[in-house]
Amino acid sequence: MRALVFCGPEDIRCETVPDPSPPDERGAVVRIERTAICGSDLHIYHGHMSPDPGYSVGHEAIGEVVEVGSAVSRFRPGDRVLVSGVVGCGDCGPCRLGRVTACERGGAAVFGTNQGLHGAQAEALAVPAADANLCAIPDGIGPEQAVLLTDILPTGYLGAEGAEIEPGQDVAVIGCGPVGLMSILTASLFGPARIFALDSVPERLAAAERLGAIPCDVSGDAHAGIAEATHGLGPHSVIEAVGSDGTIQAALSLVRRGGVVSVVGVNTSLAFPFPMALALVKGITFRIGVCPVPRYWTRLIPLVAQGRIRPEFVFSHRMGLSEGSAAYDLFAARRDGVLKVLLDPTT
Amino acid sequence: MRALVFCGPEDIRCETVPDPSPPDERGAVVRIERTAICGSDLHIYHGHMSPDPGYSVGHEAIGEVVEVGSAVSRFRPGDRVLVSGVVGCGDCGPCRLGRVTACERGGAAVFGTNQGLHGAQAEALAVPAADANLCAIPDGIGPEQAVLLTDILPTGYLGAEGAEIEPGQDVAVIGCGPVGLMSILTASLFGPARIFALDSVPERLAAAERLGAIPCDVSGDAHAGIAEATHGLGPHSVIEAVGSDGTIQAALSLVRRGGVVSVVGVNTSLAFPFPMALALVKGITFRIGVCPVPRYWTRLIPLVAQGRIRPEFVFSHRMGLSEGSAAYDLFAARRDGVLKVLLDPTT
Amino acid sequence: MRALVFCGPEDIRCETVPDPSPPDERGAVVRIERTAICGSDLHIYHGHMSPDPGYSVGHEAIGEVVEVGSAVSRFRPGDRVLVSGVVGCGDCGPCRLGRVTACERGGAAVFGTNQGLHGAQAEALAVPAADANLCAIPDGIGPEQAVLLTDILPTGYLGAEGAEIEPGQDVAVIGCGPVGLMSILTASLFGPARIFALDSVPERLAAAERLGAIPCDVSGDAHAGIAEATHGLGPHSVIEAVGSDGTIQAALSLVRRGGVVSVVGVNTSLAFPFPMALALVKGITFRIGVCPVPRYWTRLIPLVAQGRIRPEFVFSHRMGLSEGSAAYDLFAARRDGVLKVLLDPTT
Amino acid sequence: MRALVFCGPEDIRCETVPDPSPPDERGAVVRIERTAICGSDLHIYHGHMSPDPGYSVGHEAIGEVVEVGSAVSRFRPGDRVLVSGVVGCGDCGPCRLGRVTACERGGAAVFGTNQGLHGAQAEALAVPAADANLCAIPDGIGPEQAVLLTDILPTGYLGAEGAEIEPGQDVAVIGCGPVGLMSILTASLFGPARIFALDSVPERLAAAERLGAIPCDVSGDAHAGIAEATHGLGPHSVIEAVGSDGTIQAALSLVRRGGVVSVVGVNTSLAFPFPMALALVKGITFRIGVCPVPRYWTRLIPLVAQGRIRPEFVFSHRMGLSEGSAAYDLFAARRDGVLKVLLDPTT
Repeated sequence: MRALVFCGPEDIRCETVPDPSPPDERGAVVRIERTAICGSDLHIYHGHMSPDPGYSVGHEAIGEVVEVGSAVSRFRPGDRVLVSGVVGCGDCGPCRLGRVTACERGGAAVFGTNQGLHGAQAEALAVPAADANLCAIPDGIGPEQAVLLTDILPTGYLGAEGAEIEPGQDVAVIGCGPVGLMSILTASLFGPARIFALDSVPERLAAAERLGAIPCDVSGDAHAGIAEATHGLGPHSVIEAVGSDGTIQAALSLVRRGGVVSVVGVNTSLAFPFPMALALVKGITFRIGVCPVPRYWTRLIPLVAQGRIRPEFVFSHRMGLSEGSAAYDLFAARRDGVLKVLLDPTT
Repeated sequence: MRALVFCGPEDIRCETVPDPSPPDERGAVVRIERTAICGSDLHIYHGHMSPDPGYSVGHEAIGEVVEVGSAVSRFRPGDRVLVSGVVGCGDCGPCRLGRVTACERGGAAVFGTNQGLHGAQAEALAVPAADANLCAIPDGIGPEQAVLLTDILPTGYLGAEGAEIEPGQDVAVIGCGPVGLMSILTASLFGPARIFALDSVPERLAAAERLGAIPCDVSGDAHAGIAEATHGLGPHSVIEAVGSDGTIQAALSLVRRGGVVSVVGVNTSLAFPFPMALALVKGITFRIGVCPVPRYWTRLIPLVAQGRIRPEFVFSHRMGLSEGSAAYDLFAARRDGVLKVLLDPTT
Repeated sequence: MRALVFCGPEDIRCETVPDPSPPDERGAVVRIERTAICGSDLHIYHGHMSPDPGYSVGHEAIGEVVEVGSAVSRFRPGDRVLVSGVVGCGDCGPCRLGRVTACERGGAAVFGTNQGLHGAQAEALAVPAADANLCAIPDGIGPEQAVLLTDILPTGYLGAEGAEIEPGQDVAVIGCGPVGLMSILTASLFGPARIFALDSVPERLAAAERLGAIPCDVSGDAHAGIAEATHGLGPHSVIEAVGSDGTIQAALSLVRRGGVVSVVGVNTSLAFPFPMALALVKGITFRIGVCPVPRYWTRLIPLVAQGRIRPEFVFSHRMGLSEGSAAYDLFAARRDGVLKVLLDPTT
Repeated sequence: MRALVFCGPEDIRCETVPDPSPPDERGAVVRIERTAICGSDLHIYHGHMSPDPGYSVGHEAIGEVVEVGSAVSRFRPGDRVLVSGVVGCGDCGPCRLGRVTACERGGAAVFGTNQGLHGAQAEALAVPAADANLCAIPDGIGPEQAVLLTDILPTGYLGAEGAEIEPGQDVAVIGCGPVGLMSILTASLFGPARIFALDSVPERLAAAERLGAIPCDVSGDAHAGIAEATHGLGPHSVIEAVGSDGTIQAALSLVRRGGVVSVVGVNTSLAFPFPMALALVKGITFRIGVCPVPRYWTRLIPLVAQGRIRPEFVFSHRMGLSEGSAAYDLFAARRDGVLKVLLDPTT
């Protein structure tokens, strides 16, 4: 079959790779219907976390079950499913609650990285522990919405939930890329009075404003403006959706005394210079983690199905899998107003 | 001064009454700028909970502080304030947290009932424990919004908060009168997938629909419709905003297994026939209580000030205090599409 | 095999019944090692909820898996297991979280009642949806402790958890039978300042006192004593573990303003006379339901295994299955200081 | 009057200083009955956060109100009171909820530091915003218990509450000094299965064991032992009560995936090397802050008054204020098995 493969830094290609192996008794094989490129895929693209050359990449996919192991009880060939971008053993205590990133058997892994699972930017995908890591796509969910439910919408929601927003409070979201926009969209579910959206890219700020947030251009005086609007106190919660050292520092600086910083950006520093004295005086809660996607399906699917949240605006480009190399280059260069790229494995 | 006075069942009149007494050291006197008639005032109007004849009525008011006791530290004459419709001693543990209805010193009371406090449908009002029971009206809050913050908006919010709504869940609100509409408005703050709004009055259902709820006409087959829409499971939470025995029964019948019934309607039955066997099998949480208004100001004021919720649509009629008798008759008769009546004490 | 069978009111006998049928693909058969009689079994014994004559009874059991269906992935013959006294379909959303009593597929049922499942006071038991309704018995849990984990310890915990106890608050537990004692034991896990234990039986009050509770003899002036000890306010939370109309009324009367009444007693009234006016003025939360046993295993098993709670004192009598008839008569008559009876199916 | 005064690094002396000024309208003067030396006072003693020479020190005190301003409504001369070691303006939203460390008017300050408030290791103390920062000492609370309620018992509780312990989970407490021991004592209020107590001082480990914790000697193989006891997963929550970089690193290393690190040790690093990659993979919550003491009085006072927690064991030495210099030297040197020193200002 065809799959996008890491061939070296800034060199992702669509190549022929072996078909997925037949599943073990608890696994399944899914024929991919749609997949997408995630901001975190750029860490691989740029060579920061190199899988072995030849490794297929990607972790956002939906499709049709084509084969199941004998112990799979919830899915049958022909079922259309979401595939969680991150999987767990499916059987330990946390996994049974959907908290796959806290898997007690070392099973937590992301597709298309060096963690032993092939990539989802492909024609087909082998999924372990299918009963836990798949979810039937219900009526009322379109394919593009479904793809977002496999990673970035739950990730944005994790950021919003972890921010402990109470009705009437102020929130800031740092970074209005795809994940940041999903955090803005889902932060609204917790009843904040205001959402300040920080970025420097005009298109992203405009998208944030369309979601009801107050755009704050960080190339201007965003922090001073937020300080003034909050009487010098800062927002109660800050969701960080970039992952750089500087933006995490900004989040800690911006947040109100007694507040919460919730990081969904990917930061892999071994020694981030955490301003402990500031945190001590303020009294803060700081959260970071990879999203346990299946944990949030029960909440997010009805919201999308009923039209309460409409995340699909985030796809700015739709391309074929065969155009995958160009798609990565485009996304990495942030050209053509790209926000997020959907890929169709049939073309 | 002038005040609306209970003169017997269905006989409320605007009469001259003594001015409020000078406050004790912790009290204040407020000159009323706007007041309103509440659905619960109709219990008095109809003679169900008769105050002594000649007693002034009403409990929703905003105005200007004109006099304060020596131990009042937070307010000064000239301050424009919200007056909580229900007050507490202001000093015990619960009162200090705004939970005035759980006052430990027996201080919980509603203005304009037989609980020792004169009514707010008047030119002026004596307020005990002013530091606890008043709140400065901040910039950005109009007078009509402010009146709603003294009772029915917090009461609607109490219903929504008590319903323990989680993002993605379904909610039903029984009764789309003013309080029910406030519950719909504030239930949205908790991220439900759907709000089913039950009533039989077309104007009320239309108002609910404008707030984003799904109108369900109980003169038709509302329950069957909700059952079908929820695959026979019912909504996770039901907010009851009528207070009749029948509608509370309907709430218990409608709610999903494991769900919550949150009652903000006023029911004063001494022996409501509670279907315990049903509740046991379903496993439910049932809540009822009077709203501790000051507890919710911190949350609701920013939401109104920032325009996230716009409750003032609920005022269908604006009249002078001198027209109070006619205003009560109109509201009780539900004539002229009346939803809620605002009163101006200066006319 | 032998099983205890309902032969009519006050007539339970040990008789020969057919062996459990081979399991369907998701079911299992368990050879019972220990079982016990529950207070709720007396409703059957007294003929209040008559299963068909000849129906086997009981719902508390542990044992060894002897047969599993082909789709069971978590258990194998030879595994020693807890059997949840109440089961669900195991596959819907609530069941996957252990909330089997909120099963969305109508699967919630208790063994040994008329709900289609045979009784656990037998030599063997067929268990549906084994992956969800069984739990391996870990090291450090003795057989008598294990039996308590199949119903009454989780049920007592449900009462305590539902009481929303915060550290430093006062709690009352009405009824010091086996479930009430389990509520006292587990209420301590939430850090209350005091637990008032109400009963009239000296042995039960003594057992409550040994758990650290303050015994309050309801044949004396228990309510007045609690009122005085709480400065007239009452306890913040009341756990009701009897189920009679009178004791539920007492709970509503006793609880503090703003408090919680959590009922784990079985009350099957169709029209319990609920004092709604009182509840309105107090502002209360009222809970009742059957315990979703599997939901609480993760919490309770480590507490028992580490010796933090030691529930096994509740067994006052140990008898053989063949003595089942006498065991029921003894338990129903409350003779010989009986608190709870353990049954050994091998004798 | 006499007070302990900072005269330079490692030079604290009992000297004569001016009496406290008469209070402003919201303040009070308290004659100190007992005070104590806190671990955080050693930061001053060692010259790490030098107040101006001649500044009086200390922040833990109880005593009798001798003078109040005209707007103080809750206290009168003669009242015996706890003084919160940290104070706020008493009037803003957070302060009114007892969250004085989140004071919105910049009022948060600790007595006896360079924040404008004189020290509590003195014969008398001026307290601002008395209604918010004092608390009457109820019957049943002894003087030594009372002193602990002014800082370290609430601080230990903050650590335990912030650790989000659920019944049945495992907790580790790093550091068994006075604050760590208070965290062990109060962590028990949340129902953990086990509390691992880490330290290297035998007396401290013994004290932890007497509180029911499992002593883990960090001069041995404590981490390996905890890993083994938790099947390689680590405790769900870690409370850090030392404040050094190394112990905070240990907490982050020790905690389970999905867990919480709650820091009550004082760390004033401007760039603590936070292992962000590890935190990202684990998915953690990290908390640090100064304790808002008044927030916790409602919870802790009944627990102490009822004997549910008995914190006073922590005082190993009782000395006179005139011996203050020797007391500091003793405490700093950890000589004579010192755990915590109580000071009597009358001698």
